[in-house]
Amino acid sequence: MTHHIGIVGAGIAGLHLALYLQKHGVDATLITDRAPEEYRNIRLLNTVAHHHVTVAREDFLGVNHWSDPKLQYYYHDHFFNFPQPLSFRGDFTRPSRAVDYRIYLPMLMDDFSRRGGKIEYRRIEERDIRPLVDRFDLLVVATGKGPLGQLFTYRPEHSPYSQPQRRLCVGLYTGVRQPDPMNVTLSVSPGHGEMIVIPTVTFNGVANALLMENVPGGDMEELATLSYDDNPKHFLQVILNKLEKHHPSTYDRIDTARFDLAQPQDLLQGGIVPTVRNTVVEFDGGKCAIALGDVHSVVDPLMGQGANVASYAAFVLGEEIVNAEVLDARFCEKVDLKRQDRVLAAARWTNMMLQPPSEALGMLIGTMSQNQALADAFTENFNYPDAQWDRVSTPERIKAFITRHTAPAEPVRATA
Amino acid sequence: MTHHIGIVGAGIAGLHLALYLQKHGVDATLITDRAPEEYRNIRLLNTVAHHHVTVAREDFLGVNHWSDPKLQYYYHDHFFNFPQPLSFRGDFTRPSRAVDYRIYLPMLMDDFSRRGGKIEYRRIEERDIRPLVDRFDLLVVATGKGPLGQLFTYRPEHSPYSQPQRRLCVGLYTGVRQPDPMNVTLSVSPGHGEMIVIPTVTFNGVANALLMENVPGGDMEELATLSYDDNPKHFLQVILNKLEKHHPSTYDRIDTARFDLAQPQDLLQGGIVPTVRNTVVEFDGGKCAIALGDVHSVVDPLMGQGANVASYAAFVLGEEIVNAEVLDARFCEKVDLKRQDRVLAAARWTNMMLQPPSEALGMLIGTMSQNQALADAFTENFNYPDAQWDRVSTPERIKAFITRHTAPAEPVRATA
Repeated sequence: MTHHIGIVGAGIAGLHLALYLQKHGVDATLITDRAPEEYRNIRLLNTVAHHHVTVAREDFLGVNHWSDPKLQYYYHDHFFNFPQPLSFRGDFTRPSRAVDYRIYLPMLMDDFSRRGGKIEYRRIEERDIRPLVDRFDLLVVATGKGPLGQLFTYRPEHSPYSQPQRRLCVGLYTGVRQPDPMNVTLSVSPGHGEMIVIPTVTFNGVANALLMENVPGGDMEELATLSYDDNPKHFLQVILNKLEKHHPSTYDRIDTARFDLAQPQDLLQGGIVPTVRNTVVEFDGGKCAIALGDVHSVVDPLMGQGANVASYAAFVLGEEIVNAEVLDARFCEKVDLKRQDRVLAAARWTNMMLQPPSEALGMLIGTMSQNQALADAFTENFNYPDAQWDRVSTPERIKAFITRHTAPAEPVRATA
Repeated sequence: MTHHIGIVGAGIAGLHLALYLQKHGVDATLITDRAPEEYRNIRLLNTVAHHHVTVAREDFLGVNHWSDPKLQYYYHDHFFNFPQPLSFRGDFTRPSRAVDYRIYLPMLMDDFSRRGGKIEYRRIEERDIRPLVDRFDLLVVATGKGPLGQLFTYRPEHSPYSQPQRRLCVGLYTGVRQPDPMNVTLSVSPGHGEMIVIPTVTFNGVANALLMENVPGGDMEELATLSYDDNPKHFLQVILNKLEKHHPSTYDRIDTARFDLAQPQDLLQGGIVPTVRNTVVEFDGGKCAIALGDVHSVVDPLMGQGANVASYAAFVLGEEIVNAEVLDARFCEKVDLKRQDRVLAAARWTNMMLQPPSEALGMLIGTMSQNQALADAFTENFNYPDAQWDRVSTPERIKAFITRHTAPAEPVRATA
């Protein structure tokens, strides 16, 4: 039985699914409103780190074009801007890597096309939905843009916020020194927000993404609306002043003379309302549309989970499609059963980290600063948000997590 | 970390869980209001066939006391009382077996006790709930009796009926000839109901359970209220008349002179409202009670699923307890994620079979009568109701199921 799959949206979710299906001989058509050559000069799309589980999926798909060890990063560097600053590192078991999506997405579209994949370039309007449903055995909605994304109602029980919890100011910058080997820095200024420094493959080699996660009402909030174009010098000076005060360990890495956006369009400001949606719409006749990626769950970028769980969910869906005979509501139910725990855990964990830390989380942070195994386990779990949620979702679980990594060895017993 | 688990209810769910935990060194206390010696003379509890997945769990627990091949049955014999009767058989890959629960349950209680397990004999009242919750790390509710079962609210989306769909008349009978090897007969009288004939280990060797599933308003309905005690002869004569008319292939196996209940108390009459319930109640302080077995989902006995999915769910819960550090709401959520598909599928499949067959289901029945591989696959899936639901839940899936078992072999291609 040959399935015909329509995939609307060419982000990481749609592309990883399309490439997975192509590799398994399933007919997939990708539909997007942006051609590969249109990516070069648009505004920065996001800043996304791919953890090693995602890199492994790229290897599987044959689309890991950035495997040079010099492009990878190897650990998380934590910095807490306390009166007496706290810092520690946590190591991954395998390296992670970030690529500017204006490079990444068109490269994967080209991979898909070159291997015979069909891409249609068009915008989807309301009137296009029913013909699309009729045309394919399953319609995968991997973009929240346009009327298709609106098909999926939100789930209030998993969507606790009606406003962004951070005012984002995200840019690719020159003049920020890279450590060797490279790392991602997670810098926290209590009450004001976080900054994630991500070494990123850009159009001009590796540069640093500064992902400023500014708490509304905090001292950094203004960065989310400050204009670069109106007065670049002023913008940069304000940023430098804020970094010196709130994120000093990163400020120390900056060569102020060279500090600037890599390109004027390498800046993105705004905010995200974390939202989880229902994933399945059944049409007359039994055909279904299923949500994938951000349409299913959009998270604040704080913990670097969005793209990674989107890729994960794409593989779950791809695997189920390859094994399925009938692509109906029952099929979609089973897909959800398989993917939902990791997808929801990424949302829950991120949402928890957007709030002021509980006493137990504070204890975890303090203990990690003195316990390398614990810090490494926490870091590695950026790959497995479901496992992370098992460890940090309640004070009892945090205590058990700490205990597991600090328990003394069993006493050696004499054997008979 | 040593967990202390309280299990209320000593049916198959509670017992299989208790024995599983005992085998893995987890402290479990079983609480029930009926001692082993009280089972001998009570009324028939049910008629339950254990499919081979359940027998395999008994082997794992070391409680399969009925492994003699002569006690097993090996296939389903289907009979449809059409104007031109239709019959066919479907084989299991491994044998199934039924034991009177008045023998089975106390035997497993003894196994548990003899191995050092704690059983408390008491009835649970409303005022006992909070102390029970406080006493254990997790309270497993494996009985619908009493106030504990009421903690779990029902799920209307999975509980389509407010009335029993069959009026049951269930008994253990002498005078019904056993085929060699033994089988279970599924006899259907359209519009009047089904009868399942189950060779069962009883207090006096193997006898046949006649599980009459009578459609309300049909010609068999009166059997659900007809009194045996008032007039045994009349009762048996009415039964014989009905069987001759509606289930003639079984009637032909009856020695009318020897036909009687095995014991006067070996009769159970009534009906079940298929109901699925929410499974978790979280108390102040974070401790939880979790439903298991019939409290989670009670099904009509038509497809022989209740005990088998209860045992399955007990093993899922046991495995999760053994691996868990914290037994909280998150823990229960993960248990539900693992067990829900099979448990719900058993309910959905049974509920579907309680309704008049669709055209597609009629086609499946007709095709099975001429296609042994298809009949065997359908039969084997009594072990795996989730897989069965994948195959029979819609006309499209039934067609795909048939096609898979009738598709011609791929043409042999010359290799280069």
